[in-house]
Amino acid sequence: MMDKEHIQLAHGGGGELTAELIEGVILPALAGPQRPGRLTDAAIVPAGGVKFAFTTDSYVVRPLEFPGGDIGKLAVAGTVNDLSVVGAKPLAMSLALVIREGFEIALLARLLESAGRTAREAGVAIVTGDTKVVEHDACDGLVINTSGIGLLHENAALGFERVAAGDAILLSGPLGEHALAVMSKRRGLSFTSELISDCASIAPLSRSLLDRFGRDVHFMRDPTRGGLAAVLADLAEATGRGIEIRETAIPVNRAARAAAEMLGLDLLSSANEGKLLSVVAAGVAEQAVEVLARHDLAAHAAIIGVVGELGDHPLVEMVTTVGGRRVVQRPYGEDLPRIC
Amino acid sequence: MMDKEHIQLAHGGGGELTAELIEGVILPALAGPQRPGRLTDAAIVPAGGVKFAFTTDSYVVRPLEFPGGDIGKLAVAGTVNDLSVVGAKPLAMSLALVIREGFEIALLARLLESAGRTAREAGVAIVTGDTKVVEHDACDGLVINTSGIGLLHENAALGFERVAAGDAILLSGPLGEHALAVMSKRRGLSFTSELISDCASIAPLSRSLLDRFGRDVHFMRDPTRGGLAAVLADLAEATGRGIEIRETAIPVNRAARAAAEMLGLDLLSSANEGKLLSVVAAGVAEQAVEVLARHDLAAHAAIIGVVGELGDHPLVEMVTTVGGRRVVQRPYGEDLPRIC
Repeated sequence: MMDKEHIQLAHGGGGELTAELIEGVILPALAGPQRPGRLTDAAIVPAGGVKFAFTTDSYVVRPLEFPGGDIGKLAVAGTVNDLSVVGAKPLAMSLALVIREGFEIALLARLLESAGRTAREAGVAIVTGDTKVVEHDACDGLVINTSGIGLLHENAALGFERVAAGDAILLSGPLGEHALAVMSKRRGLSFTSELISDCASIAPLSRSLLDRFGRDVHFMRDPTRGGLAAVLADLAEATGRGIEIRETAIPVNRAARAAAEMLGLDLLSSANEGKLLSVVAAGVAEQAVEVLARHDLAAHAAIIGVVGELGDHPLVEMVTTVGGRRVVQRPYGEDLPRIC
Repeated sequence: MMDKEHIQLAHGGGGELTAELIEGVILPALAGPQRPGRLTDAAIVPAGGVKFAFTTDSYVVRPLEFPGGDIGKLAVAGTVNDLSVVGAKPLAMSLALVIREGFEIALLARLLESAGRTAREAGVAIVTGDTKVVEHDACDGLVINTSGIGLLHENAALGFERVAAGDAILLSGPLGEHALAVMSKRRGLSFTSELISDCASIAPLSRSLLDRFGRDVHFMRDPTRGGLAAVLADLAEATGRGIEIRETAIPVNRAARAAAEMLGLDLLSSANEGKLLSVVAAGVAEQAVEVLARHDLAAHAAIIGVVGELGDHPLVEMVTTVGGRRVVQRPYGEDLPRIC
């Protein structure tokens, strides 16, 4: 679509168009003449002598329940994860509901029980909330917003500026399980019965890395909307460094790959909801994989690539299975609306 | 409606049904076997040796722009106010958007500029955000969630348990201006051209009271959904004390009263978005009114009532203009959906 004056689904996809909307409209409007640095997933707020992380996310996933999770679990795990990847331990969460008139109360209770269970497992309390109800034709079911605050890990020294040439890029497990479990359910694909969303709190993974390797952990992110491709594009752009990943090193879930092929989707840009991407000093990379792999959640953790030198037009390149080289582009929009 | 198994619009109205949903479904689900004390508008979180307030609200108001404000201003002022009434100075805010595909980008920019301006005026930064886009038939425009964190005022000692017999009940200005400005616009009533929403940050009011009277300020709340009636019902129920207000003492906006009569609404249960209700020690009540009235926002501040003794069935009673007594009930649901 060429309509530049109206919002398109792709504006919400985590790709180029999302970046344009944020940089071109949202940040200038919210900030006025003086622009802030960035409107990040989790901001760091110094207060009372300590440093807090603060994050927010609204969840609009359809269907509300999918193999491996539901909107309640997703909303809590997603915000816990946003805090975790900036090196913060979750302290408290909010949960705000926009519910359509006529929504089944038993389903609401089930989804909220799932949210509550996920919060308890992550050791974080939901301390404040809000409930709005809208007319039947004003919303297609349920929107959940969660925000969270966390206290920065004392060993955390994370940021694009800490990423150096030679750093190893680690991925905690196979790509695309969330997006493809949701899409398979939505499309009624039954062949992928073993395909379940990876939706989970990755707080234990990030904490293990920081506890053990401290300042040798340079950067962390969870590859949600836009997938691995969007995170690596951000990394290349913000650091000015080339990135090289090896296709053969990327952990694979066969069912997810089969579903991706059937649906014509790219695993590299498919959303994940329980994976950690980390950039660590080369010297600790092997050990870091071992530490991650002790968690069930990261049994297939692997070094998937390396950070390169500074360059004028830094690219993300993938050495393919057959030994060729392919440039990994930032996804433009989103193949998959309402995935999170 | 007697359907107990599905969500009704009234579940979002801030009245009896909202309380039932929160107490009966939301809190048990989120908390599991061990119930938290309350899921309050703004929770107090101790961390790093200081006390933080943390709050969230989703805004679904229609129309998006109304006399005196818009959804952007409302979303920022509302969260600033929720922090202010628990005695906190706003530190940082989040802003999360759910936008319908096809939404006009120029309108989005205008609404966000209003949000940004309101935040700058209140001295609080919007530090983190999120953007989701949903299909045309999945949402009727725009939902904004804001969450906020604040640092507790050093003089703040607020809570239901601090409210005592003889305490004065203060209101910063006339009731219902927000609800009736929005409803008049929605219904196309043109006779009330002077009726504009009171939508504003009340942070300066609460701060003035705490700066000057410290621990003599016992309780504060902004009477939004459910209006004054809902706040006083909460106060009576939570303190176990009767409340008496005088109708002649309540500040009046003639246009709001005329609109309420025409629309068949009760000003006592109509939503406000820039008013402060406070309960202060009797000895400082007159001075507190003077301090409030120095602000343009509270030029018509008044003592509207008094807190009574403990009782088994504490009631909120209003001495009417003609000298009779009327019990003020907690509103059941909501006459006015999508008001905030």
